[in-house]
Amino acid sequence: MKNLTKIVLAVGAFAVAGTAMAQPKPEQYVKHRQSAFALMGWYFGPMAGVAKGEKPFNKEEVTKASALVATMAKLPYDSFPVGTETIGNTRALPTVWSDNGKFRELGNKLSVEADKLAALAAAGDEAGFKKQFGVVGGTCKACHDDFQKK
Amino acid sequence: MKNLTKIVLAVGAFAVAGTAMAQPKPEQYVKHRQSAFALMGWYFGPMAGVAKGEKPFNKEEVTKASALVATMAKLPYDSFPVGTETIGNTRALPTVWSDNGKFRELGNKLSVEADKLAALAAAGDEAGFKKQFGVVGGTCKACHDDFQKK
Repeated sequence: MKNLTKIVLAVGAFAVAGTAMAQPKPEQYVKHRQSAFALMGWYFGPMAGVAKGEKPFNKEEVTKASALVATMAKLPYDSFPVGTETIGNTRALPTVWSDNGKFRELGNKLSVEADKLAALAAAGDEAGFKKQFGVVGGTCKACHDDFQKK
Repeated sequence: MKNLTKIVLAVGAFAVAGTAMAQPKPEQYVKHRQSAFALMGWYFGPMAGVAKGEKPFNKEEVTKASALVATMAKLPYDSFPVGTETIGNTRALPTVWSDNGKFRELGNKLSVEADKLAALAAAGDEAGFKKQFGVVGGTCKACHDDFQKK
């Protein structure tokens, strides 16, 4: 394991990896949360055509995509520590910190609703999936309305 | 479902969502692959201390982190289409396209090795996990050496 430090340096995100892992820097938190949201949108967006009946319900595809959305939904909400309010190109509104309870509540709701969507997809429940897709999208939107810059 | 277009617009990544989903733009591919790599590093990096014996082996923590690494390892490699070679702040070297077979092979190897790491973590096999962590890190490094700008 002699090359481990070199290896971890090569991985890149935690280029500080030496002995004990350092606390992430503010810009790393921003990158982490934005990456999770970006992947969430990447896998969620294309399912809209399925939900609207414009594309066929492909069980394998929607199962994979909705599972990834559900995984991503659990990742970003611990990456809004104090000190990251105005870092980089963040679109977070000050309300993320001033009304953090509501923000976290909506994050938890997203996780629950995305889990339901993934379960409906895996069960091949097309009608249930289409209905739940709207619920998940509405949960995204509710949070964006109050906590994200336009 | 009348507000679905508005909802999908609010999600953001695919702001073009109208009828059929449009092909992602080059910069969206770059964002997608970079997001997957960023999350991979975020969850992989902190496990180095465990692999080096500097932090205790917490089965629950490493199981969660290594499962996320394994999930992320499957995402970026379809997001290097021709036309994205020099977009944005990409660190991809031209070899990604000129030696694409080897690039994909290393991507597949990462997925296989990361799955093994996740399985060892979930099984609570501390010694196996520590050894396999080095294998996964070495796979990251092998690809970075040949396919990523320094």
